[in-house]
Amino acid sequence: MGRQVAGRLFTGEARDRLTTIADTDPGLVADDFADPAVAGALAEAEVLCTSWWCPPITGDVLAGAPRLRAIVHAAGSVKHHVTEACWERGILVSSAAAANAEPVAEYTLASILFANKRVLDIARLYREQRTSFDLESLFPGFGNYRRTIGIVGASWIGRRVIELLRPFDLDVLVADPYLTEDLGVPHVELDELFERCDVISLHAPALPETRHLVDAARLARMRDGATLINTARGALIDQDALVAELSSGRLYAVIDVTEPEVPPAGSPLYDLPNVLLTPHIAGSLGGELGRIADLALDELARYAQGVPFQYGIEVDALATSA
Amino acid sequence: MGRQVAGRLFTGEARDRLTTIADTDPGLVADDFADPAVAGALAEAEVLCTSWWCPPITGDVLAGAPRLRAIVHAAGSVKHHVTEACWERGILVSSAAAANAEPVAEYTLASILFANKRVLDIARLYREQRTSFDLESLFPGFGNYRRTIGIVGASWIGRRVIELLRPFDLDVLVADPYLTEDLGVPHVELDELFERCDVISLHAPALPETRHLVDAARLARMRDGATLINTARGALIDQDALVAELSSGRLYAVIDVTEPEVPPAGSPLYDLPNVLLTPHIAGSLGGELGRIADLALDELARYAQGVPFQYGIEVDALATSA
Repeated sequence: MGRQVAGRLFTGEARDRLTTIADTDPGLVADDFADPAVAGALAEAEVLCTSWWCPPITGDVLAGAPRLRAIVHAAGSVKHHVTEACWERGILVSSAAAANAEPVAEYTLASILFANKRVLDIARLYREQRTSFDLESLFPGFGNYRRTIGIVGASWIGRRVIELLRPFDLDVLVADPYLTEDLGVPHVELDELFERCDVISLHAPALPETRHLVDAARLARMRDGATLINTARGALIDQDALVAELSSGRLYAVIDVTEPEVPPAGSPLYDLPNVLLTPHIAGSLGGELGRIADLALDELARYAQGVPFQYGIEVDALATSA
Repeated sequence: MGRQVAGRLFTGEARDRLTTIADTDPGLVADDFADPAVAGALAEAEVLCTSWWCPPITGDVLAGAPRLRAIVHAAGSVKHHVTEACWERGILVSSAAAANAEPVAEYTLASILFANKRVLDIARLYREQRTSFDLESLFPGFGNYRRTIGIVGASWIGRRVIELLRPFDLDVLVADPYLTEDLGVPHVELDELFERCDVISLHAPALPETRHLVDAARLARMRDGATLINTARGALIDQDALVAELSSGRLYAVIDVTEPEVPPAGSPLYDLPNVLLTPHIAGSLGGELGRIADLALDELARYAQGVPFQYGIEVDALATSA
C-alpha cells in the first residue's frame, strides 16, 4: 500500500493490534515489490495486508512469495492489484469493501435528505436575497414525505443506502440486472426507475457495459426537478449530456466523481448553482480509515484463528462488481 | 388555521378523508373567530381542527362554542392558541408535534453527516481552487467514524434524532434537566456535553430559562472545529457571541432559526463560509404537510370512534416543552 495510507490506517490502537495478531514489522510498507527490503519480507510472508496504491501482485511477485496464502485488503476494490495469477494460485482474498461502503452510503443519505428539501438551493437564495420568500411557490410539494428514491446497482453501497433509507417516509426502487434476491423494495428496469424517481443515486461499478449508463436519453427520462447523485465513478455518466441538462436548470445533481477526476477549470460543474460538486470524498477518509483498519484486523484475526474470512471475495463475482 | 395552511394541509386524499370522518365543511376555514360564518359553525362544533395561524381560543371564543370537546392540532406547538381557558374547561387536546418532529430530525441528521465529513466546506474549496488538495492535512481525522454527537433537549425531535443516529458509528450524548428515562445514550450535564462533542444539536424549547442557553462561555467550551446546529429557536443562542466565534473560524454552524427570524441584511451569518444558514425550513413544509394532515386525521378518527388520542397533550407538560 502507499506509505501515507499505511500511516493513516494503522495509527495508535490499530497498529498495536496489528502487531499483536501478526508477526509483522509495521514500519516496513511495501509500495514497490522490487525494493530489496520488501523482497526479503515477501519471501517469508503468509499474508499480505494491502490497501490503496498497492502495486499489482503479478506472477513475478508471487514467484518471490512462496509462502503467501492470503491477501487482506484494507480498502474497497481488489481489481487493481489482485491479478489473475493470484486467483490461479488459490490465494484467499478478503476486502474491506463493506466498511468502505459505509461513508459513501452516509454521504448519499444526507444528499438525498437535503435534495428533497432543497436545503442548499434555499440556503443560496437566502444568502442572495436576505429576506423571507415563499418557499411553497418556489418548490411546490418539496420535502421528504412520500418521495421516490431510485438506487442503481445493488452493490454493498447500494444495499446499505437502501437499509439507511428504511426509517424515512420515502419509497425506494432498485435497478440491477444481476439482482436475484428480494431486498424488500421493488426491483424495476432502469428506464422505469429514471422515470419514477425524485432522487436517483448511482451505485453501479465502472465496467465497459456501464460506461455512459446515464446518457442524454436516460437524463431526458428524469422528472423535472429530480436529483442525480453520483458517488460511484465518473464514467457512468455522459458528462456533457449532464451539463446540458443542468445548465437548463431542469435537474439537480450531487457529483462526487467526474471524468477526468478533477474537471478542467472552465467546467460549468464548478459554477452551476444546482450542483453540489465534491472531489471524490464520499469514500473513507480521515477518521473513517479507522473503520477499514478495524475490519481488516478482524479478518486477519479470523485467518490467524483458522476461521474463514467474513468478507472473502470470490473471483466469479468480480465480473459484475467494482 | 390560516387559509393558505388549510389549502396545503387538506388536499386531494386528505380532504376526502376529512369529510368522511367528520361532518364538516372543508371550505369554511376559521382564521377569525369574529367572522359571522365562523361564529355560526363554532356554535355547533364538537372538535376544532387547528394549525399554524390559528387565533387564540380564548374564554370568549369558548363561550360561543358550548359543544366544543376537543382540539386536534395539525401542527407542532399548541401554546399560541390553546389558552388557559381551554384547559380549565377540560377540552381534550392532541398535537401533531410527533409528525412535525420528523423533518426537523431529518434535516439535523443530514447536517450532522455533512458536518463531520466537511462536505460543504470541501465543496466550496473545490469550487474556488479547481484542483485536487490534501484533505487529510486540511481536516485531520475528519469523517463520520467514532465522532461524538450531543443532543440538547430530549424533546420529540431530540429523541427522534437519537433514534435516527443509531445505524451510524457515532457516539451520542444527551443533556436535558427534565429527562428521567433511559434513552440508551449517556445522559450528561450541558457543560460536559459542550466539551465532549464534535457536533451539538439544539432541540430544547424556547422558555425564559433557556434564553441564551448557548452563550459565550458555553461556546468557548466547544472543541475547535466543532459544529453547532440550531433548528429549535433563535433565542436559545446568544447570536452575537456565536458570530464572534464563527468569525474567528474556530467553529462551524448550521443555523435554521435566528433572532430576528430574518437577520438584518448586513449580518455576517449570510457571508461566513463556515455557516449553513436557512430560513426556518427544517420543520414541515411542502409535501411534508401531508404527514401532519395524516396524523391529525388519524387522531380525529380515534376521537370519532371514542378511542383516546395517541398524541394527547397534558397541560402539565407544557411548562417544559415547546
